[in-house]
Formats: sequence, structure tokens, C-alpha cells
Amino acid sequence: MEVRLLSQTTEYALRATICLAYRQEGLVSTSDLATMTKVPMNYLAKVLQLLARSNIVTGRRGVGGGYKLTRAAEEISMLDVINAIDPIHRIKTCPLGLDNHSGTLCPLHRKLDESIEMLINQFSGITMADMIGELGDIRPLCDEDMTTQVELTMSGKK
Amino acid sequence: MEVRLLSQTTEYALRATICLAYRQEGLVSTSDLATMTKVPMNYLAKVLQLLARSNIVTGRRGVGGGYKLTRAAEEISMLDVINAIDPIHRIKTCPLGLDNHSGTLCPLHRKLDESIEMLINQFSGITMADMIGELGDIRPLCDEDMTTQVELTMSGKK
Repeated sequence: MEVRLLSQTTEYALRATICLAYRQEGLVSTSDLATMTKVPMNYLAKVLQLLARSNIVTGRRGVGGGYKLTRAAEEISMLDVINAIDPIHRIKTCPLGLDNHSGTLCPLHRKLDESIEMLINQFSGITMADMIGELGDIRPLCDEDMTTQVELTMSGKK
Repeated sequence: MEVRLLSQTTEYALRATICLAYRQEGLVSTSDLATMTKVPMNYLAKVLQLLARSNIVTGRRGVGGGYKLTRAAEEISMLDVINAIDPIHRIKTCPLGLDNHSGTLCPLHRKLDESIEMLINQFSGITMADMIGELGDIRPLCDEDMTTQVELTMSGKK
């Protein structure tokens, strides 16, 4: 097995949130999101429910329904999305339950906790706006054709 | 589900390797290691086989058998142990297989790759000797009674 830094579900949630970050107004249907994120629709529907429960997205069912972000892309960090799916926890107590490690972690768990802290700091400092805002950059998740299609779908202006 | 930075199996492998790092010479039986690491013996036996396959430990079966490190604790990094169980891989190509991301990762996967790189750098810089060598520190994995017991078992001198 490989180490995955994030679970598959979390990666899917990040993809969906980034796609919604492109959207300035209105709703994006689950079906369109599934196409853009390359996530199976039923799977994505569950991911969106988890994101809604953590108040990152809000949605409406039925014809013309879909999802949008609850706030500006600048105000949603990678950590917010990750914690909505698989929360990252610091190591606060000895995983072995050793009595004399109750006050201080041993070097192994302290080093691991430092790595977790580092990741939390990194992920909390990156917003969805950063993901879509880097000028001259390729757009996350979207290939050329898809980008055009997404812009058409999303802006409704072209 | 919670995010675990490392899998349970990897954590067990780190515990076992650290316990072996205390040992200056001779073999530690799987049974003793199981007690010290609080890992079920059958599970630990498989972990030790994986560590042996990656040339981190070497063992001998039968009465008086057990395991030891193949080299000095200074020469075994956390990354060596992690990679023996669940290798950490950088993100080299677009996980969505998008054609126009083949040369450059998009911001999402670039940021994730940066985090992975950071972890690899951190884990490659910490050796098993660091784990057991911090002066005045509590010993990894061992409670007070266990430490005495381990020293007795391991040194064969007390």
C-alpha cells in the first residue's frame, strides 16, 4: 500500500470545492461537478453532503438545483475542506496509553506530532482562492476543452 | 474517519525498529518485541518480515531466534522504515490524467506534492538513533517498568 497524504474522499472534496470556487454566482449541478472533477456522481453526492454539513457548500435539490460555496473562496482553506471529510488531529496523548508518557510524548510521537502540526499550518494557509488565482498558471482540474466548457457553463455569459 | 499521517502498520514498524535500536547486540525475540511495542504477535511477525525484506532488520527463526537491525541506528531513518511498509511517493503526474497537466501539476496537486516533499525531508532527517538518543528524555514506547525490563532483557548484564 502507498501512503496517501489525503484520502481519496478528501481529494474529491478538494476538487469539488475548487470547481465551485470558479463559480461567481448561481448553482453548479452535481452532474456538472462530477464531469469536471472526474468523480462518480453517487460518490460525489455524498462528498457534497459532508461539505454541506460543515457549512462549506450549500445546495438545493431538484431541477435547476446544485451547489455553491457558502462564502468567498478567500475564506475557505484547504484545512477547512480536509477537516470536513477526514479531520486532522494532533497527537495529544500517548497512542500506547503508557502512564509515564501522559505528560510528555515520547520522541517518536513528538516527531510525528510535529509533522502533523506542520501540515496543519501549511493547509490552513492555502485558500481556495489561492488555488484558482495564480496568474499564468494552469487551472486546477480542468483540461483545455473542459476549461472552456466550465467557463461557458459557469459564467453563463459566453 | 480521521486522517492518520501514517498507517497503523507503519506505526508498528517504527515501534519495532526503535525497540531494536536499543539493542546493542544479539537478537530480540518477536514475543519480547510484541510486549514492548504492544502489537499483536502475528501482526508484528508480518511487519518484521516487511522490514527484513527492505533490509532494515535481519532475523533467525527457532529457539533463541529473533531480530536485530542490519546496521547502526544512526543509519536508519524514519523514512527508511516508512518506505519499507507504505512508501511515500511524490505526485509526479496529474492524478486526473489531464493532458494539459502532463508537464506541470495544477495548484492543487502542486501544493499537495509540496507537503509530501516536506514530509519526506523531515522523515529522512530523523534516525532511529535520534529517537533513542535524546538525553534527559523519556524513552520511546516504554513505561518505567517496561524500561527496566527491556534493559534487563536486552543488555543481559543487569
